[in-house]
Amino acid sequence: MNTPPHVLVALITAFDAGGEIALDDHAHNVAHLVERGISGLLIGGSTGEGPYLEPGERTILVSRARQVAGNEAYIVGATAAQSTRLARGQIFEIAEGGADAALVLTPTSLIRGNHAAVHQFFAEVADASPIPILMYSVPRVTGYELPVAVIAALAGHPNVIGLKDSGGRPYRMQEVARSVDPAFFQFAGASAAIASSIAGGGYGSITASTNYLPEQIDRLVTMARNGDRELESRQVAVTTITKVVEAHGVVGTKAAAVISGMRSARVRRPLMQLDQAAFEEIRRVVPRTA
Amino acid sequence: MNTPPHVLVALITAFDAGGEIALDDHAHNVAHLVERGISGLLIGGSTGEGPYLEPGERTILVSRARQVAGNEAYIVGATAAQSTRLARGQIFEIAEGGADAALVLTPTSLIRGNHAAVHQFFAEVADASPIPILMYSVPRVTGYELPVAVIAALAGHPNVIGLKDSGGRPYRMQEVARSVDPAFFQFAGASAAIASSIAGGGYGSITASTNYLPEQIDRLVTMARNGDRELESRQVAVTTITKVVEAHGVVGTKAAAVISGMRSARVRRPLMQLDQAAFEEIRRVVPRTA
Amino acid sequence: MNTPPHVLVALITAFDAGGEIALDDHAHNVAHLVERGISGLLIGGSTGEGPYLEPGERTILVSRARQVAGNEAYIVGATAAQSTRLARGQIFEIAEGGADAALVLTPTSLIRGNHAAVHQFFAEVADASPIPILMYSVPRVTGYELPVAVIAALAGHPNVIGLKDSGGRPYRMQEVARSVDPAFFQFAGASAAIASSIAGGGYGSITASTNYLPEQIDRLVTMARNGDRELESRQVAVTTITKVVEAHGVVGTKAAAVISGMRSARVRRPLMQLDQAAFEEIRRVVPRTA
Amino acid sequence: MNTPPHVLVALITAFDAGGEIALDDHAHNVAHLVERGISGLLIGGSTGEGPYLEPGERTILVSRARQVAGNEAYIVGATAAQSTRLARGQIFEIAEGGADAALVLTPTSLIRGNHAAVHQFFAEVADASPIPILMYSVPRVTGYELPVAVIAALAGHPNVIGLKDSGGRPYRMQEVARSVDPAFFQFAGASAAIASSIAGGGYGSITASTNYLPEQIDRLVTMARNGDRELESRQVAVTTITKVVEAHGVVGTKAAAVISGMRSARVRRPLMQLDQAAFEEIRRVVPRTA
Repeated sequence: MNTPPHVLVALITAFDAGGEIALDDHAHNVAHLVERGISGLLIGGSTGEGPYLEPGERTILVSRARQVAGNEAYIVGATAAQSTRLARGQIFEIAEGGADAALVLTPTSLIRGNHAAVHQFFAEVADASPIPILMYSVPRVTGYELPVAVIAALAGHPNVIGLKDSGGRPYRMQEVARSVDPAFFQFAGASAAIASSIAGGGYGSITASTNYLPEQIDRLVTMARNGDRELESRQVAVTTITKVVEAHGVVGTKAAAVISGMRSARVRRPLMQLDQAAFEEIRRVVPRTA
Repeated sequence: MNTPPHVLVALITAFDAGGEIALDDHAHNVAHLVERGISGLLIGGSTGEGPYLEPGERTILVSRARQVAGNEAYIVGATAAQSTRLARGQIFEIAEGGADAALVLTPTSLIRGNHAAVHQFFAEVADASPIPILMYSVPRVTGYELPVAVIAALAGHPNVIGLKDSGGRPYRMQEVARSVDPAFFQFAGASAAIASSIAGGGYGSITASTNYLPEQIDRLVTMARNGDRELESRQVAVTTITKVVEAHGVVGTKAAAVISGMRSARVRRPLMQLDQAAFEEIRRVVPRTA
Repeated sequence: MNTPPHVLVALITAFDAGGEIALDDHAHNVAHLVERGISGLLIGGSTGEGPYLEPGERTILVSRARQVAGNEAYIVGATAAQSTRLARGQIFEIAEGGADAALVLTPTSLIRGNHAAVHQFFAEVADASPIPILMYSVPRVTGYELPVAVIAALAGHPNVIGLKDSGGRPYRMQEVARSVDPAFFQFAGASAAIASSIAGGGYGSITASTNYLPEQIDRLVTMARNGDRELESRQVAVTTITKVVEAHGVVGTKAAAVISGMRSARVRRPLMQLDQAAFEEIRRVVPRTA
Repeated sequence: MNTPPHVLVALITAFDAGGEIALDDHAHNVAHLVERGISGLLIGGSTGEGPYLEPGERTILVSRARQVAGNEAYIVGATAAQSTRLARGQIFEIAEGGADAALVLTPTSLIRGNHAAVHQFFAEVADASPIPILMYSVPRVTGYELPVAVIAALAGHPNVIGLKDSGGRPYRMQEVARSVDPAFFQFAGASAAIASSIAGGGYGSITASTNYLPEQIDRLVTMARNGDRELESRQVAVTTITKVVEAHGVVGTKAAAVISGMRSARVRRPLMQLDQAAFEEIRRVVPRTA
């Protein structure tokens, strides 16, 4: 397997006036970005109007990009399917075009909110895929955010190599980062959250903005990756503790405060006292004052 | 006006078994945190069960904290009122106790979603307040997030000195930072987002976790503040552009890409072509390829 | 205990130019509505700016209304408190004014989404209240809808006599109606849903519109109550079955169809086959074709 | 154009163990329902796993249903496409199979929240369609509810004959009913809301439950349609007024109350007084006391 670069563009798809793919313009666009230093290409993501692509078009777009960008480029094709069968079919199109990996859109429609079915979808698609896959969480498009627990469980699948998270909430990356192998590739999909996402454990970015700000995004990612690793590890250490405590709201905070040397864990009603199991869970993570 | 420290604790409120304030425990808690280096205290925030505090209690809690912590401490009292009258009354209680500033909870109930009324509320409260105020956005408690535009407009009020944002989305801070005076104090309220919030322009933190992790939060804030300023300014430069472009979705991205040297801004239906005004707005911010 | 009438007005609260209660206007308003045939009054609900009322005002408003409307009127006072203590205090004010019952606002703030704490709140408030209480679900104000399961559990409390549901979704009433005693009073709080709510098992209405459309609302409620009882019972019979089936989405529907004589319960992935327990649950409610 | 019956089934799609269409089972299912009195069939809706259907399958399913059910049956085929092109293509498949009409799923993905683009989508699809279309609003599947204003605007298109609304909120039907031609066909899609939807102006139902409760749904719809028309018209008259008033919240209610003979339209801050235009709008609809 090739290693993806830290910056991929969520490439636009060129159409002509009749709504057909404009293949020469597509080739121009790929060449233009490669010349500007971008060696990673996502084809048919939401910026590429993936939900509007038709049977056969993914193969054409990927293979032409491969032809123009050469074997050095890292090319990912995206699915936009609701059923396992259709997702598999789109991945075969993408693989046939010569892509390195596939980005798989989180299904919603008939299974909206059914996390077990979402998990099964990704697992079966990954089992069947001839190329590695990344998961794709994009709440603005789907009205649904892929839960961290589902991401963490699927990150262990040998054919699932990463995630594009376009939700723009960087501490999700941090949460994922804590529960997956360091080799799992987390990409920020929201331009405004690139620096903070990478600080939170992200590997790089796949954004629409790389179409028109390629050098700027490249420099931003590079700088964020070479940033202060100590800061990041301190934030992770704090979040690891606060997530446990804050799962119990104010009541959890008061218990932690008493463990830490303060007084009075009592709350006004209707807040409810912690049960013993929750108290023990908090006691295990909160440092005591010497 | 005193300048607030970079770290404030969202202090718990000590109660006895009957639900009355346990004033000696409260004094102990203040002393305990001051000894551990915390010189900023928020009293009666949501961690302090502010919505459950009763008339008179804010004065008692603030004045006892002042007595214990001395004049060097920076003390903020929080309101939890829905009407302008009640908020004003709570601020007078807070001021009477000797606080340096008041943190004012965003009202919802009868004006949920009515941004103009929310704006008027803060403006009138600030006009009437004998001490400076900070705005408080806390979606987990109110089910509502104070809009950036409202924050930016109110930041110009001479008696509004800052914001506590507990939403945990750091690029909101970045957006605010771009439109306010550098002296406006933005505090992160979500522990998991401290480092990224400060990287995005935040001044410091006011969190529940400072009750039980005072040294850790203090070190984290200090480190984040001394972090890589160049990274931050690059991220701001990128976000400034992408927010303009992405307000128009895929269509905006394709326009920006063409301005930048790529080809074909055409989209498949039902996406709609940009009007001329939107195109010009994008053209003004997107750099052209030489 | 008096029996409430089928129509109550969610009375506005009269204020003067300085924001103080205008008690003579309040008396006029009560007299005006009583003359127009309205014998039920809710005081200090959200239409009565309840979240803006101050200590002591509930007693004044209720007692003046009692004085004007006489003992024949049914008067309910509303709380708008977040803590159990404050709710109890407001109920004592309401009872002192001479109200027949109290309408208790669902708390959110520090327990948003914590159904167990919401349940405890209502139970403890009902235990302590000297007068019967009704629960108040009003998502537009609180950003939270009181779950049907919590309503059903509390409906068994001897001091909880009813519910005002302003969410405007009539089949919630139907769901509640199926699991509570027929003597439980469900009031529609949304004017647009009066007829359908009563068809779904509602007892009457408590709406803001009764301030300015008293005769119209009275006639509408009367007519809906005397409507076609057979229609209602058929709808209830259908919903009882479909709720069980549709809890499992398309998969549940296919199982029910096969039980009923159709063929092929197989689904495309990522839909997941039913487990045996769910299948049995559906088999118990779906009629088989002869 | 044929007139649709008042009851259509949202037919399940029969699959075999390999996930292929089980055409004989499909024929059995159609025959089974026709024998039980159902003459309206929706094929490929969400219950029919429409988002999982593949190119060519809609034609096969519709034409086999036509063959079995005969020309007396009213057959609707559903699309599940995001782009205008793909929706058009699916409609041609549906028409080729011999359907009377097409049910067109509301697109979201790249235009989530962009009402103008949603409007354009339906208008262009209707222009191009060889058969009449119905709009399909199904928030549980799409995470988006088609706005009443968009429905009302499109109801005037000569090729748009109706709506299936699966949101389960009956007064939406009432709002639509007031602004469209009486010949516009509104179908309830939520089983629990059939009676109340028809009371609110609905024409009939298209539900999943008709697969396993065909006689029950048929009787329920018949009874609701023959129900109390005076009740319905009174509810409509009330809602027409309250929607105008309540658009301005408590402030609107107080203005209406004063117009109607009560006293004091003043509100506590941060509620804001009405401007003159809003006051006039309310004055036009609220009846004055003689």
